[in-house]
Amino acid sequence: MLEPFAAVDVIRAKRDRNVLTDPQIDWVIDAYVRGVVAEEQMSALAMAIFINGMTNHEIVRWTTAMINSGERMDFTHLPRPTVDKHSTGGVGDKITLPLVPIVAACGGAVPQLSGRGLGHTGGTLDKLESIPGWRALLSNDEMMQILTDVGGVICAAGDGLAPADKKLYALRDVTSTVECIPLIASSIMSKKIAEGAGGLVLDVKTGAGAFMSDPALARELAATMVTIGIDSGLKTRALITAMDVPLGFAVGNALEVEESIEVLAGGGPADVIELTLTLAREMLDLAGIDADPAKALANGSAMDSWIAMIKAQGGDPAAPLPRAREMHEVLATNSGVMTQMDARGVGVAAWRLGAGRARKEDPVSAGAGIFLHAKPGDAVTEGQVILTMYADDAARIPSALEALEGAIQIGPAGSTVLRMPLILDRISP
Amino acid sequence: MLEPFAAVDVIRAKRDRNVLTDPQIDWVIDAYVRGVVAEEQMSALAMAIFINGMTNHEIVRWTTAMINSGERMDFTHLPRPTVDKHSTGGVGDKITLPLVPIVAACGGAVPQLSGRGLGHTGGTLDKLESIPGWRALLSNDEMMQILTDVGGVICAAGDGLAPADKKLYALRDVTSTVECIPLIASSIMSKKIAEGAGGLVLDVKTGAGAFMSDPALARELAATMVTIGIDSGLKTRALITAMDVPLGFAVGNALEVEESIEVLAGGGPADVIELTLTLAREMLDLAGIDADPAKALANGSAMDSWIAMIKAQGGDPAAPLPRAREMHEVLATNSGVMTQMDARGVGVAAWRLGAGRARKEDPVSAGAGIFLHAKPGDAVTEGQVILTMYADDAARIPSALEALEGAIQIGPAGSTVLRMPLILDRISP
Repeated sequence: MLEPFAAVDVIRAKRDRNVLTDPQIDWVIDAYVRGVVAEEQMSALAMAIFINGMTNHEIVRWTTAMINSGERMDFTHLPRPTVDKHSTGGVGDKITLPLVPIVAACGGAVPQLSGRGLGHTGGTLDKLESIPGWRALLSNDEMMQILTDVGGVICAAGDGLAPADKKLYALRDVTSTVECIPLIASSIMSKKIAEGAGGLVLDVKTGAGAFMSDPALARELAATMVTIGIDSGLKTRALITAMDVPLGFAVGNALEVEESIEVLAGGGPADVIELTLTLAREMLDLAGIDADPAKALANGSAMDSWIAMIKAQGGDPAAPLPRAREMHEVLATNSGVMTQMDARGVGVAAWRLGAGRARKEDPVSAGAGIFLHAKPGDAVTEGQVILTMYADDAARIPSALEALEGAIQIGPAGSTVLRMPLILDRISP
Repeated sequence: MLEPFAAVDVIRAKRDRNVLTDPQIDWVIDAYVRGVVAEEQMSALAMAIFINGMTNHEIVRWTTAMINSGERMDFTHLPRPTVDKHSTGGVGDKITLPLVPIVAACGGAVPQLSGRGLGHTGGTLDKLESIPGWRALLSNDEMMQILTDVGGVICAAGDGLAPADKKLYALRDVTSTVECIPLIASSIMSKKIAEGAGGLVLDVKTGAGAFMSDPALARELAATMVTIGIDSGLKTRALITAMDVPLGFAVGNALEVEESIEVLAGGGPADVIELTLTLAREMLDLAGIDADPAKALANGSAMDSWIAMIKAQGGDPAAPLPRAREMHEVLATNSGVMTQMDARGVGVAAWRLGAGRARKEDPVSAGAGIFLHAKPGDAVTEGQVILTMYADDAARIPSALEALEGAIQIGPAGSTVLRMPLILDRISP
C-alpha cells in the first residue's frame, strides 16, 4: 500500500503548531491501527497535541477517525429510545447503578458499556461483580435481548469499539499524555458515539477527588465533549458536578451496591438521590420520554427493573453481598463540626484497602472499602466513629490510614463548611 | 533492580516545563539504554524537550549522561597533543580531508571519527572510500599507531561511544524531534567528548544549504556546544561559516577527494583553502602548537602526511579515482553575472545523482556528483557550461536537474551578488 502521508510530516505539523488536515488525521489514526505509524511516532504526536492543542474541528475529526477504526453499534430497531450516560469518575460514584434501572423503568433503554476501575476511583463493573453470579461479558444478542426486555444493561464494552482509542489510551498511560482535554474528550466520545445510543448525558466531575479538579478545566472538557457529540449527530448534554467530597456514605464495591439498593428501595443518601434523579431527568428528556423518575423510585418499578437486570446477567439480587474480614474504625479526635473530607484521600484509602487496582491485571476485593458515618457539615463528638474501614487483609489498613492523613478536618462548632454545590453547571448546545 | 524514578514522572516534569534534576537525567538516559525506558516514552520526552527546551545545565548533564552510557577514548599517552574538529555538514564540505594532514604535519594529532552521509550533505567516510583500498574501520590499536606515526586518522566511530546517542538519534529521526538545539548539541558533543581529544573546533554551518539555515540559530547551537565542551573540561571553540553556496567547485565523493588533493598540492579553490587554514589555525592554537599551516601546504609536508595517512588505512594515494559513466552539462541560459547558487539545490541534485543516500543502508556512488564551473560573482556567457553532472545511471539526471530548478540565478552584468562572508563569527568561551 502506498501511504499518502509520512508520520514524520504529521508529527512535525503539530509540533510546529499547525492545524492538522482532515486527511492527515484520518490517515494517522488508521495507519496507527495498521501498525504503519509506530508507537514511538504516535507518542511524539500525542505529546505535541498535549502541549500545542487541537482545534475543535481537529478534535471532532480525530474522534470520528477513532470511531471509524472499529464497529459501531446500532440500536435503532429497539422498541425503546436509547439514551446513555458517562461519568468521568469519582469517589463513591455509584450513580450508574440506581440510574440505569430508573430510566429503564420509565421506558428508556440504557446500553451502559462500562469499564473497570484503575487508580483511586472505582469501576462500575467491579462494583456489580460483587453480586454473586453476575457477569459483565455479554454477547451482542444477549445485550439486545436484555435492552428489549428490561430496558437497561450494564456490561463490558467489546474490543470492537474504537480499537484506535484502546491502543492510544494504553500508550498515553505510559507516556504522560493522559491529562489533555482534546485527547480525553475524543477518547470518551469515540467510545460513546460508537456505542450508538440516541442521546448522551455526561457527568463531568470536578473538585479534589476528580480527574479534572479545576472547575474551569472540567467545563472546558464538558463543552468539548458536547461539541463532539453534537457534531457527530448525537444529542449530548453535560452536567458539571461536585467531587470535592465522596458521593454518599459508601466507597467500595459491595458497599456501593448496597447503598444503591437502598436508593432503589426509597432510602439512601440525599446527594446520591439528587444526582441520580437529575441525571435521570436529563436522560429522559433527551429520549423524549415524559416521566417522573422520582415516581419510579417511589412505586418500586425502578427496583423491579434492577432485579430483572441483575437476574438477566446471571446475578442473584437476593444473595448476601461479600463483606471484608477485617474492620477498623476511625474516631473523631475532637468535637465540633466536620469542615472537610477530601474525596481523593478517601478514594486512595479505599483503593489501598483493596477496593481498587493499581494495574489493569490486578484483582479487586469485593468487600473492601470505607463507610462514612459523618460528612462535612455534620456535628461530631470526640471519640465518635467517623468512618469504618474494611479490608480482607489487616496489613492494608496502615497505608490506608496514611492516605487519610489531613483529609478530614473537624473545626469548632459553628465553623464555616465550604462545599461545592452538587450540580455546578449544565452545558447543552 | 529497584528504579529510583518512573519514566512517566520524568516525562511529565518536562511536559510541564519543569527543569529536570541531575538524578532524573542520569537515570532516564541509563534506563533508556537498559530498555527500562521504552522507545515510546523517550519519544514523548524528546518531543517535550523539543517544544519546551532545556536549560544549559540540563543540556550539559544530558550530554554527560550520554557519554557515560559508553566508553571514552584516552589519548593522553600519545606523544602529540590531540585536537579534533567537527562540522555540522555542508554541500561540498570536504574540509576535513586537507585539514587533518595539515594539522598532523604541524605536529598535532587529529583523531577524526567520522560518519557517513545521509540526505543532501555528503559524509567524510563516503568520500574517502572512493580511494581504492582505503578502509574506514580500524581497531583501537591501529588508530593509536597511525596517530603516533602520522598524526592524523579519519575513521569510523566505534559502536562503544555514546550508545545512548546512537539509540536516541535513530528515534529522533522517525519522530520529528531532530531540529532541536539541546538535542543536536548534546548529540554532537557526547560523541566528540567521548572521543577524548584535548581540544575541539566546531564548524557550524549556516545558510540555505546548512542544517541550521538561520544564522541566529547557528550561533545559538554553537554557543550551546561551546558551553557543553567547556563545562566538560574540553577546550572548545566554534566558527560560524557560510553554507549559502557550495564550498569549492566539487560536490560528490571522488570529486571532492580530487579537489582536496589539489589543495594539498598547493592549488584548489580559494574558499576551501581559506576555511581549511582558518580551522587549522584554531586547532593548532588549542593544541598549543606554534606553527603556520600555510607553510605545511607550501612545503609539501601536508601532502606527505596525507599520503602516509591514506596508505596507513590501506588506500593507494596514487591510484586513479573512480569516474561516473554518464555526464551531463548544464549551460548558462543568458549572459551576465551569476548572482546566486543555492547550496541546498546543488546538494540535493548531487544526492539524486547518486553521491548521497536516502536510507542508512543504501550504497553511494563514488563517481557521481557535480562539478561547478562558475560560482556567484563570476561573469558568465550564454551557452557556457556552468556545471557538469556525473552519474552512473543517466536515468538519475532528470530528477537532479529538477532539484536545481531556480537554484542558480544569472543577472545582468553589474547585478549585486549577495553572499555571506565565509567566516561569519567566532565563538570562544
